[in-house]
Amino acid sequence: MAAAITCSAADLHPLLGVAGNGTAAAEYLCSRFDAISDMFVDTTYAVDNTYLLFSAYLVFSMQLGFAMLCAGSVRAKNTMNIMLTNVLDAATGGIFYYLFGFAFAFGGPSNGFIGKHFFGLEKFPSSSFDYGYFLYQWAFAIAAAGITSGSIAERTQFIAYLIYSSFLTGFVYPIVSHWFWSADGWASPARSDNLLFGSGVIDFAGSGVVHLVGAAAGLWGAFIEGPRIGRFDHGGRAVAMRGHSGTLVVLGTFLLWFGWYGFNPGSFLNILKTYGQSGSYYGQWSAVGRTAVTTTLAGCSAALTTLFGKRLLSGHWNVTDVCNGLLGGFAAITSGCSVVDPWAAIICGFVAAWVLIGCNKLAEKLKYDDPLEAAQLHGGCGSWGIIFTALFANKAYVNQVYPGKPDRPYGLFLGGGGKLLAAHIVQILVIVGWVSITMGTLFWILHTLKLLRISPEEEMAGMDLTSHGGFAYEYNDEGELDNLKGRVELTKKDSSSV
Amino acid sequence: MAAAITCSAADLHPLLGVAGNGTAAAEYLCSRFDAISDMFVDTTYAVDNTYLLFSAYLVFSMQLGFAMLCAGSVRAKNTMNIMLTNVLDAATGGIFYYLFGFAFAFGGPSNGFIGKHFFGLEKFPSSSFDYGYFLYQWAFAIAAAGITSGSIAERTQFIAYLIYSSFLTGFVYPIVSHWFWSADGWASPARSDNLLFGSGVIDFAGSGVVHLVGAAAGLWGAFIEGPRIGRFDHGGRAVAMRGHSGTLVVLGTFLLWFGWYGFNPGSFLNILKTYGQSGSYYGQWSAVGRTAVTTTLAGCSAALTTLFGKRLLSGHWNVTDVCNGLLGGFAAITSGCSVVDPWAAIICGFVAAWVLIGCNKLAEKLKYDDPLEAAQLHGGCGSWGIIFTALFANKAYVNQVYPGKPDRPYGLFLGGGGKLLAAHIVQILVIVGWVSITMGTLFWILHTLKLLRISPEEEMAGMDLTSHGGFAYEYNDEGELDNLKGRVELTKKDSSSV
Amino acid sequence: MAAAITCSAADLHPLLGVAGNGTAAAEYLCSRFDAISDMFVDTTYAVDNTYLLFSAYLVFSMQLGFAMLCAGSVRAKNTMNIMLTNVLDAATGGIFYYLFGFAFAFGGPSNGFIGKHFFGLEKFPSSSFDYGYFLYQWAFAIAAAGITSGSIAERTQFIAYLIYSSFLTGFVYPIVSHWFWSADGWASPARSDNLLFGSGVIDFAGSGVVHLVGAAAGLWGAFIEGPRIGRFDHGGRAVAMRGHSGTLVVLGTFLLWFGWYGFNPGSFLNILKTYGQSGSYYGQWSAVGRTAVTTTLAGCSAALTTLFGKRLLSGHWNVTDVCNGLLGGFAAITSGCSVVDPWAAIICGFVAAWVLIGCNKLAEKLKYDDPLEAAQLHGGCGSWGIIFTALFANKAYVNQVYPGKPDRPYGLFLGGGGKLLAAHIVQILVIVGWVSITMGTLFWILHTLKLLRISPEEEMAGMDLTSHGGFAYEYNDEGELDNLKGRVELTKKDSSSV
Repeated sequence: MAAAITCSAADLHPLLGVAGNGTAAAEYLCSRFDAISDMFVDTTYAVDNTYLLFSAYLVFSMQLGFAMLCAGSVRAKNTMNIMLTNVLDAATGGIFYYLFGFAFAFGGPSNGFIGKHFFGLEKFPSSSFDYGYFLYQWAFAIAAAGITSGSIAERTQFIAYLIYSSFLTGFVYPIVSHWFWSADGWASPARSDNLLFGSGVIDFAGSGVVHLVGAAAGLWGAFIEGPRIGRFDHGGRAVAMRGHSGTLVVLGTFLLWFGWYGFNPGSFLNILKTYGQSGSYYGQWSAVGRTAVTTTLAGCSAALTTLFGKRLLSGHWNVTDVCNGLLGGFAAITSGCSVVDPWAAIICGFVAAWVLIGCNKLAEKLKYDDPLEAAQLHGGCGSWGIIFTALFANKAYVNQVYPGKPDRPYGLFLGGGGKLLAAHIVQILVIVGWVSITMGTLFWILHTLKLLRISPEEEMAGMDLTSHGGFAYEYNDEGELDNLKGRVELTKKDSSSV
Repeated sequence: MAAAITCSAADLHPLLGVAGNGTAAAEYLCSRFDAISDMFVDTTYAVDNTYLLFSAYLVFSMQLGFAMLCAGSVRAKNTMNIMLTNVLDAATGGIFYYLFGFAFAFGGPSNGFIGKHFFGLEKFPSSSFDYGYFLYQWAFAIAAAGITSGSIAERTQFIAYLIYSSFLTGFVYPIVSHWFWSADGWASPARSDNLLFGSGVIDFAGSGVVHLVGAAAGLWGAFIEGPRIGRFDHGGRAVAMRGHSGTLVVLGTFLLWFGWYGFNPGSFLNILKTYGQSGSYYGQWSAVGRTAVTTTLAGCSAALTTLFGKRLLSGHWNVTDVCNGLLGGFAAITSGCSVVDPWAAIICGFVAAWVLIGCNKLAEKLKYDDPLEAAQLHGGCGSWGIIFTALFANKAYVNQVYPGKPDRPYGLFLGGGGKLLAAHIVQILVIVGWVSITMGTLFWILHTLKLLRISPEEEMAGMDLTSHGGFAYEYNDEGELDNLKGRVELTKKDSSSV
Repeated sequence: MAAAITCSAADLHPLLGVAGNGTAAAEYLCSRFDAISDMFVDTTYAVDNTYLLFSAYLVFSMQLGFAMLCAGSVRAKNTMNIMLTNVLDAATGGIFYYLFGFAFAFGGPSNGFIGKHFFGLEKFPSSSFDYGYFLYQWAFAIAAAGITSGSIAERTQFIAYLIYSSFLTGFVYPIVSHWFWSADGWASPARSDNLLFGSGVIDFAGSGVVHLVGAAAGLWGAFIEGPRIGRFDHGGRAVAMRGHSGTLVVLGTFLLWFGWYGFNPGSFLNILKTYGQSGSYYGQWSAVGRTAVTTTLAGCSAALTTLFGKRLLSGHWNVTDVCNGLLGGFAAITSGCSVVDPWAAIICGFVAAWVLIGCNKLAEKLKYDDPLEAAQLHGGCGSWGIIFTALFANKAYVNQVYPGKPDRPYGLFLGGGGKLLAAHIVQILVIVGWVSITMGTLFWILHTLKLLRISPEEEMAGMDLTSHGGFAYEYNDEGELDNLKGRVELTKKDSSSV
């Protein structure tokens, strides 16, 4: 940034050529320009870290959103269980990501597969990474584990959760983020050379890296352990198992929406950056704002499509479905949010809503049970988002966000050729493959060792009672229900006495 | 901002008058000052956009606050219905505000009544508006619709909601915001000439533009469809219909408080701006902080006044009333928050609390039923806030926030004359008139077409059951109540068998 | 900051020594450097105020977290009561802190015991304090009162709450914050001379100033009024009294976590500050980020320790305990968050979890009843945090955060000697002493005047019914329970008729 104000005394002295002390004059002036240049460096660090840290806080708030969404979507008897997994995603994630997750993901210089520096934040911070970046990436890592816990809710042993969650946050996810987001990653669009299909994968905020990873893991878990008791009747027909609180679902959805403004626009990592020309009103700050707008519009479009789509299909104006549709729109736009136009984001959301409806139909047919629709939502809509980016990425935006390679491929539908699409199809395949090999195997081992699924008795009683010391709610201590009970007892006595 | 460091080689050359290459020396130096000037422009854009975007996220979080406040204030059987309206306010608002709402509001250059550029964000961003500004204004637009849905809760057809909400967010509200907030608006205080009463209306964050608009719309809706069944008994006496969750009311209130820090201080739109003198500790950043403080104090003062006022009137220390009083204080201070002193904000809140109490008494007398007290709170306290600003606006602050017109009128009680008050009375009349003509007519048409109110049967059963696929809560799947039911059944059998 | 670019025309003129107009040339150039220097001042104010204000908003959101945590931790019948105290902590705090609390705390120049300027924000802002600072400190003040209300929940007269809360927020707490945080305070590490043990107390974000103050007040209140009815059985054994909603506990915990990112990293008050060398990647922005990381890790470590510790002790994976453990880790790291390494933060959290478990055991033995474990959590873990800082404070960080005194003592375990530990032990003793004298006396007076505890009848019925106009929840207006009631009535009639 400071190049334009670099001042060289050697250059300036002959220009001044003064009778007095030309060298000293030049040095006097240049030292001031140098100091100004340094002060812009300080200012830029302060502004960018403010931006990144508050974005990280927003992403963290999504963990609360997940907790509430999950809690509301399960039956009351498993509320404590699912909320504990959400708290622990953040807590175990914090320790493991500090010890080695971050190192695997971003510990460059390294090879294309895995990072190898910064274990336990050793030799940190550096000129490339500061603490705010670690915090931001941690908040992403714990989101992936949260998605998985939704898919296998209400029937998974707590010990299984502890094992897969650690493995996912500490190893499986960091490797994937290394591939696509570290400058060393084999599929990174920021590599200096050997870009995948001459392009690399543009998964800006992680429709693939975060959402598809969490979804694929959950898919294997839910598939291996099978549906909840009662989810499909004896004739094989799906039976709706409603969550216990629509209010919590809406609360969680809005919190996720709020946090997504950290997730997507925050993925720029900094905001004080020009696009070529200093002094212009258009710079990274505009791209950040545009990303917030595309994110918003994709969610809005998906929500409205779901509203009317489900009304046609089911006859209801269903708020839970609208919430899921909204989140599906967000999961889809996450990949391309920074490189597409607002009008394209509306298309993204529209299609995402139908993708989710279709995936849910398919899941029912296959007798796949996912209490949060997490695999459908994050996997189905996430995959659509990856494809969408390859179709609609705007040339100018791509070159601003991923600079330094002017002939970079962009969206197929905008004339950018098919290379980006090829790279993005590879992304989907590789992520599904990697997660299947690692997490699929893990879930299968847990299943074989009888560590995965709880017993039918536990499932009927609810995990809160059997594993977590009691139910989440106790509304009626000395209230209405107790009076009622008293009257029932009384009635019973009356009738007995007859 | 950069004027003071403008460097002219033509001016500097003769001053240097050097033996060497004077022109080159001057150009060398001046090009560096020019670069510095550009870098300050970049820095200012980055800082201001960071400020505006995070403010927009806070304002958005108010939508969550509204959802929770509304949910808690209605009966359990209508929870899903009201929450769906809150989700859809944001979603339909997003699409309509993108397509034309923003254009109607801020599409200058235009006439005083309506804007006419930026439909679908065409030719966007420009030197005057960036994406962050659109996002911020969208978050305001959806707040207005949220107020209205509170007034007509628990008895309005969902289709009516869809119609009025679109019309309000896409047309009625944008027009009003154009009048008072666009530089072209006929009542804007930022017009270059022909200011209303030589002043224009100072409705800084929208006691009128947002709160009174939403309230007036809700008032007509609730008036036309009449009170909920059971709200007034056969003798015409008011019967309290308590909301189903005080916890949600408090949650919503605190979230609104949190979000109001985006609403009021955020309305400055930028923070890196001096008030005349560069290098001083006092600038727009101080005014932003002062606005956060006045907002806080008005709410605190209104909450305490309500606490003791209602204790005297009802004998209880009522938390719901305190929450509403608090919000009334916020709605009132929203107009003048940036131009009044902290001590005046305390007066603002004190009066707002009594205005709300009075409006609620009046509503009961008139058999007006508003489940959220929304018309009373946002309309009554909002109107008081508009008047309050005209009485207490501080001369210095007015000239800092609305610069360039040193003889501008200010608060009547501080010696600023009656012109501001005249303009503000016009604001109230015009807003009530415009909203009555548009929204009042719309609600009347819906009423005539039998599209406004649900049937008594639906109202008794609850809209969640009749329109939204089921109740919000299912606490007792295999829990206590089921056991209890079992015992009741048993008891029944026992007695029957006798 | 601007020293390095100071330009003196008197110095520059002889250097230029030009044939033309040397003085004018020098002045021309220097005036531009002066303007640049001023613009950096403006920029720094804008960035730092943005940082501080948004941090203040986050700290404010902790009040919502407290409200939800408290609500979930009490029985349903006292929900409205405890939430009202949380709303009023903020509201009365706002008025009292404006009128005199802030003046007592930060009204320098003053003596070491109490401040004496800025009553009612008179002569505000100044070059030392702006409105954002007031708002930030207000958000801290109301947190202390919130802690106390947890300890004495479910059995304290509302009038007693109003009295102690005002006294605590308006006087007791501000005095303590003056001692340790005002530059004039007798134990401040920022004093110009006469530092306590040559060091002063490093209580960066307030393990002592906020948490221990609130806890010690609550301890006296809860001790004087005794345990809730039923908390200990006739044999003296503790009976668990579960809160009514685990969901609210988790919601509150996550909100507190979210807000703690304002509490701890925000306590730097500014972010655009170099550590000696301008133009380096390492500056206060890094320390802010590191503080966010130490905070996170301490909480994570405490949560996991509690999870496994309580599993060993109780056999359950208990989510409420994990939440409390997590918060205990935060309360502990709050003192040293800015001056310790991430690895040390993990130790801090590990020990904090066991401190909380131990304090809870002790409380049971002593028949001390604290519905929120507030005294144990904020007092026990807070005190451990104060000690921890004295053991693990890193020399380099201490000198960066508290500059200007290079031989300053630091952590005992890192070779910094015992002086910091001595100062910190004094802090604990002095805080406990001061709060005992003031708040202990107040609670004793209230007790003597029969103003402290509610009657047993009120306690059984619940305060919501007796003082606050009704219960928080009304789930079953026309829902399931009513049908059930109907059936019960029917059953009753059937049996009676027999």
